Amino acid sequence: MITGKNYIGNKLSAQGDIQHKTINPKLNKENPTPFFEATIKEIDEAVQLASEAFKKYRKVSGAQRANFLNAIADEILNLDQELIDIYTMETGLPEGRAIGERGRTIFQLRSFAELVSNEDWRENTIDEAIPDRKPLPKNDLRKTLIPLGPVVVFGASNFPLAYSTAGGDTASALASGCPVIIKAHEMHSGTSELVASAIIKAAEKTGMPNGVFSNLIGRGKIVGTALVNNPKVKAVGFTGSIAGGRALFNLASQREEPIPVFAEMGSINPVIITPKALNKRSEEIASTYANSITLGTGQFCTNPGLILTIDSDKTVNFINDLAKKTIAIEPQCMLHPNIKSGFDKNSTNITALSGIEVIGKAQDELKNNYAASQIVSVSGADFLANPKMHQEVFGPFSLVVKSKNEDELIKIINNLEGQLTGTIIAEEEEYSELENLVDALENRVGRIIFNGVPTGVEVCPSMQHGGPYPASTDSRFTAVGTNSIKRWVRPISYQSFPNTLLPKALQR
Amino acid sequence: MITGKNYIGNKLSAQGDIQHKTINPKLNKENPTPFFEATIKEIDEAVQLASEAFKKYRKVSGAQRANFLNAIADEILNLDQELIDIYTMETGLPEGRAIGERGRTIFQLRSFAELVSNEDWRENTIDEAIPDRKPLPKNDLRKTLIPLGPVVVFGASNFPLAYSTAGGDTASALASGCPVIIKAHEMHSGTSELVASAIIKAAEKTGMPNGVFSNLIGRGKIVGTALVNNPKVKAVGFTGSIAGGRALFNLASQREEPIPVFAEMGSINPVIITPKALNKRSEEIASTYANSITLGTGQFCTNPGLILTIDSDKTVNFINDLAKKTIAIEPQCMLHPNIKSGFDKNSTNITALSGIEVIGKAQDELKNNYAASQIVSVSGADFLANPKMHQEVFGPFSLVVKSKNEDELIKIINNLEGQLTGTIIAEEEEYSELENLVDALENRVGRIIFNGVPTGVEVCPSMQHGGPYPASTDSRFTAVGTNSIKRWVRPISYQSFPNTLLPKALQR
Repeated sequence: MITGKNYIGNKLSAQGDIQHKTINPKLNKENPTPFFEATIKEIDEAVQLASEAFKKYRKVSGAQRANFLNAIADEILNLDQELIDIYTMETGLPEGRAIGERGRTIFQLRSFAELVSNEDWRENTIDEAIPDRKPLPKNDLRKTLIPLGPVVVFGASNFPLAYSTAGGDTASALASGCPVIIKAHEMHSGTSELVASAIIKAAEKTGMPNGVFSNLIGRGKIVGTALVNNPKVKAVGFTGSIAGGRALFNLASQREEPIPVFAEMGSINPVIITPKALNKRSEEIASTYANSITLGTGQFCTNPGLILTIDSDKTVNFINDLAKKTIAIEPQCMLHPNIKSGFDKNSTNITALSGIEVIGKAQDELKNNYAASQIVSVSGADFLANPKMHQEVFGPFSLVVKSKNEDELIKIINNLEGQLTGTIIAEEEEYSELENLVDALENRVGRIIFNGVPTGVEVCPSMQHGGPYPASTDSRFTAVGTNSIKRWVRPISYQSFPNTLLPKALQR
Repeated sequence: MITGKNYIGNKLSAQGDIQHKTINPKLNKENPTPFFEATIKEIDEAVQLASEAFKKYRKVSGAQRANFLNAIADEILNLDQELIDIYTMETGLPEGRAIGERGRTIFQLRSFAELVSNEDWRENTIDEAIPDRKPLPKNDLRKTLIPLGPVVVFGASNFPLAYSTAGGDTASALASGCPVIIKAHEMHSGTSELVASAIIKAAEKTGMPNGVFSNLIGRGKIVGTALVNNPKVKAVGFTGSIAGGRALFNLASQREEPIPVFAEMGSINPVIITPKALNKRSEEIASTYANSITLGTGQFCTNPGLILTIDSDKTVNFINDLAKKTIAIEPQCMLHPNIKSGFDKNSTNITALSGIEVIGKAQDELKNNYAASQIVSVSGADFLANPKMHQEVFGPFSLVVKSKNEDELIKIINNLEGQLTGTIIAEEEEYSELENLVDALENRVGRIIFNGVPTGVEVCPSMQHGGPYPASTDSRFTAVGTNSIKRWVRPISYQSFPNTLLPKALQR
């Protein structure tokens, strides 16, 4: 069923000469299907179709957009085992994870369907006329939110379903009335094509205009650059590395007409453990965090990469215990060879820095793309002296910092770049003393967790998934939860409008 | 009372050597007070103070921030005639306008005081825990909006009060919990200092931290550039030219940590007049628009600079009548010599373009900075062929385009850059035929007006003052109305938080 072709709107297309194959990271072998990378002509066609489709799609009713989103969910489920198989082949992730992530993807699509099945999300407001107001009459004004136009979504390496082709960015953009053009992650070209086929089927079944969705294949920067530079593209969603997200942000900011880029990028997600918490439940915390650090081979944007403690004997014991428990967990495969080599390079770079001590590392000689989990440690003073230690190591790796006191620990937080999350592990008896810590984290992160782990991003209205740069390119928006639709819409006011020409929800 | 000094927090400061004077445009003479431009050291001090003040100010209660804003309004009123006098001396605008604009400024301050006197504006949401959810328990999540940090506001040339030192950007930022540093408009240094003195008095009386507000004087780019490049500055508000706004946007996007810039910039505000409307009430429309075009010497961002018609004899009569009525209105003074020379240059450039016909121009030999109103005309084909005709002529100038038919008129709208407003003048009997026109405008503007004029921006929740680039740098936000507070805040989630450490409005 996988053809290796692009979807330019509803049509499969393979006009180019350049092909690539995806990789089964567990076997370190190419998967069989060759994928045809999109040509500049195909890219332009997809954007032109999206731009034409936008004229119709922006006027499609909320109920119809909800039908479309629900149909996408249905068609993804119809892909059944074929989708699970290609997902696991292209990522090395286990089948259970594939099924779980599919569930999350379906849930997101249905959540947005529910959201737009009525007009409440548009923040409609009405100010009625006051004709006899002095000194000037007040005009009737009514405001709503309308879609921006075609949105380009870059699929994430670590969530081939939930943050990719039919993931949160796509679901929120389609829900808002924006057509979507996917730049498929090069290592998930097969998964992306299958999911795209489901979206196209759903679009056809529910009568959506051709061009409301396209799926483009490409490796390297050519396809992405051409998409972001196309004047008909009006916004960009991205999940991935700081280098990638920033490059797209720069392109978009330098266009003649700059457009918004929401890039959710790197984060090391500091976790603060108080001495009292370590005194009371060191082993439990070590077990919980060994699991969180290695979950999904550490390939989560909310992976706890930085653990901040106050130095003591107990702390040393905790770090040793954490290292022991972490490396005792069976090593798992990484998403693809580039991710594995990035993990090796970044962990090697950090461990080479002055003051870093390797406390535990899983066996080094692992087959193919399996990752050796690692716990390293450093003093607060050394960490403060070297910002290179802030580098995210994407994978099962965590750096434990031993500060000499709370002041130093707070200083470390204040010196960190923006983060998706911050976590506090503390005891009830000391809650009244934690205000400074909460204040410091509030200034640096998008979500603060108490006595838990940062991994696990609930899809619900109160979730903020984003944060100060470089956690995201715009801390005022979220990538997860129904509020993420706000990235793709803008307000419009209607002044003294005839009733019949107003959007229905604003009519008298 | 005017000292010519900067306010670095609560302290008057004049460390620099460079001075300038403002100009009375009616007399074309310098006003007496020399103003000391802020030095790099003073700029850094102001930002450092703002950054320190932020730590306290972000935790000041809504009721206290409301007190502060109301106290600013009171202190501005206490400035009484001294403020009105310096305003008129620095702008050439009449006293009635000064009093009206002061009223608007006071109204905005009090509106934001009311907004933040309770917590509804923060979009607080609560998702309660579901401990027995399968397969995983759901954590308690609570979300609110928190301020970004120090905001730099650039005062506008055309609204020395309502869009400047204590204008909408400042009021919304202070309301949100962000300290504000003003880069005063160089031609309103006196007005800005007086208003700043009122803000400082209000800050002291209501116990706000030193540094919550600073007022910096500067001409040219040095002060603005240093402010936007300072890493402790977290957002920028600007009202002015496309060149100025884009330069700040570029600086902010190229920082190591990019920050949001909301710049409200140029707009020519297309007005579409249908043939039926011209048939029925040509004279009335001409009178209304002659007034709108010359209101405030045409120095409004919503000034109707482009009038789109379908060509006919009636149209020619209308244009002649509009020109006659426009130039019959007594010429008024412009804000300052730079604005006047820009007006002369831009109107001369446009009238030199092929196809442009000057229909009427007020007497040419006007004293000092008085502006000669002008109505020019062009065919739809010529307008479509030359994007140079889209250039805003800031002042009492309007270009009337005669399209050959509705298709050409719609094409013209589709080819326009983003605009603050679009206006439709039409008859009730044809409302059902206007859907294409409304569609085209929706894609280009932030506000659509029916049978009215674009000038006059109501301060109310349903106002959208902004629009697709270059009307603004981010069409997802507004510069006017209480929603403008959203430019300066970001969401934060609290997961499984102890009740006592939650913000009050999120507590159980």
